[in-house]
Amino acid sequence: MAEFDIISRFFTFGEKPDSVVLDKGDDCALVRSGNATELLAITTDTLVCGTHFLQDIPPHALAYRCLATNLSDLAAMGAMPRWFSLALSLPKEIAQNQDWLAEFSQGLQVLSAEHNIYLIGGDTTSGPLSVTISAVGQVAENRCLLRKNAKVGDLICVSGTLGDAAGALKIMLDQSTPCDIETRDALFSRFNYPSARVQVGLALLAFSSCAIDISDGLLADLTHILKASNCCATIDIDKLPLSPALVRQFGQQAAQRMSLSGGDDYELCFTIKPSDIDKLRATAEKLDIPLHVIGQIVEGEGEGLKVVQQGQIIEISDMGYQHFA
Amino acid sequence: MAEFDIISRFFTFGEKPDSVVLDKGDDCALVRSGNATELLAITTDTLVCGTHFLQDIPPHALAYRCLATNLSDLAAMGAMPRWFSLALSLPKEIAQNQDWLAEFSQGLQVLSAEHNIYLIGGDTTSGPLSVTISAVGQVAENRCLLRKNAKVGDLICVSGTLGDAAGALKIMLDQSTPCDIETRDALFSRFNYPSARVQVGLALLAFSSCAIDISDGLLADLTHILKASNCCATIDIDKLPLSPALVRQFGQQAAQRMSLSGGDDYELCFTIKPSDIDKLRATAEKLDIPLHVIGQIVEGEGEGLKVVQQGQIIEISDMGYQHFA
Repeated sequence: MAEFDIISRFFTFGEKPDSVVLDKGDDCALVRSGNATELLAITTDTLVCGTHFLQDIPPHALAYRCLATNLSDLAAMGAMPRWFSLALSLPKEIAQNQDWLAEFSQGLQVLSAEHNIYLIGGDTTSGPLSVTISAVGQVAENRCLLRKNAKVGDLICVSGTLGDAAGALKIMLDQSTPCDIETRDALFSRFNYPSARVQVGLALLAFSSCAIDISDGLLADLTHILKASNCCATIDIDKLPLSPALVRQFGQQAAQRMSLSGGDDYELCFTIKPSDIDKLRATAEKLDIPLHVIGQIVEGEGEGLKVVQQGQIIEISDMGYQHFA
Repeated sequence: MAEFDIISRFFTFGEKPDSVVLDKGDDCALVRSGNATELLAITTDTLVCGTHFLQDIPPHALAYRCLATNLSDLAAMGAMPRWFSLALSLPKEIAQNQDWLAEFSQGLQVLSAEHNIYLIGGDTTSGPLSVTISAVGQVAENRCLLRKNAKVGDLICVSGTLGDAAGALKIMLDQSTPCDIETRDALFSRFNYPSARVQVGLALLAFSSCAIDISDGLLADLTHILKASNCCATIDIDKLPLSPALVRQFGQQAAQRMSLSGGDDYELCFTIKPSDIDKLRATAEKLDIPLHVIGQIVEGEGEGLKVVQQGQIIEISDMGYQHFA
């Protein structure tokens, strides 16, 4: 059973209270606390050793990456990061290793300071290495980025470059692959230290109302938008933003495939009206973060997502990362 | 290094924002969301297979117990439960086992319905079996139960009975111990289905301002109160509330030891003014939950906790559960 089936089948129960504006099915849940005028955006992400990272990940990167995945969920709602809690399961030998703990702590500190999010508490237990962070942000009720808000005619955009984390993972898993140090560093740093696009999410509130973060791969995550918004999409494979390092290492064609299906990039995928293309360019310039148009929302029922190249539809078999598949 | 040292040494950093009323060092963190008049109480608890439960725990009990430990933290603040998120790490064979998932789901449903707390979302990943829940409650700023509020002369009280979960664990770990079915059922049910004393916590707001939940053992947890309140305490071992099942199985003396040091009972330990003893009795009667006076807060520096029996101080070597010790 896939992750999404498990959630809808076994973890959807009870009567939704009035305080819950949005629950399962977006990047964060949205709840209203008492008489507050802003909503709380709440998300949780777990990284498990052997599933999301390899044993030899630098502890600094592990901490950074787990907080980044949560910040990325807040970014995808256009939420302002506020507080987070940390549940850390540690094997005994790591719990006794002060260097490891100091490096892990440093990774959290760097990223939490950058995004002004504060560690309020948590739980430290003995067990196999895994990290769960729950993050809380704030967002205005009528001004946030939801998966269900894509409209026919909207342009589909992404931040940064895609496929780098998938490229890094490929090299990590097959250490015999030749790779120059510069390329390796560039790709590994994208896997270990993903950019949480919080500033992009906040800036998008001015002219977008639909976003998702790319954690399972562009095709899989864009499909969530299409399902929630009940529309179809066409994306142009030649418009996918690729890093020089990814193309250098794997060639143009393989890099394009990785950018379609590779997970773990934590870039934002969002939609804008065609008339707002100048705002998109101005935002990219102001934040100094690439923002590219890669396709368009089109009419249609269901989940139809077409990938075209030079006007021809191309077949894509690999739809991205599926838990338990 | 003990859990508390790890937290204070490696996970206390950054400048505390004005929105954070209380962070590490109590049962929940307290934060203020925008202009809301109530505070949010936030807690996280993880249960890891092999550390907090054995492989053969019924999935219904595992879910119930993990939510109960979080509700217990809210109870210890006097907070009203509102929302929770679930991070579930599942081995592949369990993710494919629909009976297991259905039973687990049922355990969550029963307890969440009882306490009117709503599952807003979470993360399901592949990995060794572990469950992390983050729960959010609401509490008035000037009316909540804090570890630092014990005063010299206060009576020390506990809810329910103590030591039952420790007794259950002893039987689980040594299946050769003879034990009649009634006793076994009584103790196992206290381990698998701990009572989250939410109603007690809420009722205490009327006449108490200091509580903790007993997760690591009475001595260890009461010591947190003494440290935070900068005072000492005397407790009378003959006043500790013991269940008939625990005494039947282990005898009076061993049962008393378990009630001092055994963790996982999730009862509340709290303080009241001696003049409020009638309110205590009325509350116990109204809620139909035993509330017993077991000792008194006394003057003194540091962490002095004396256990007396018939007026004599007795030596206690085992101070309760320590992670990583």
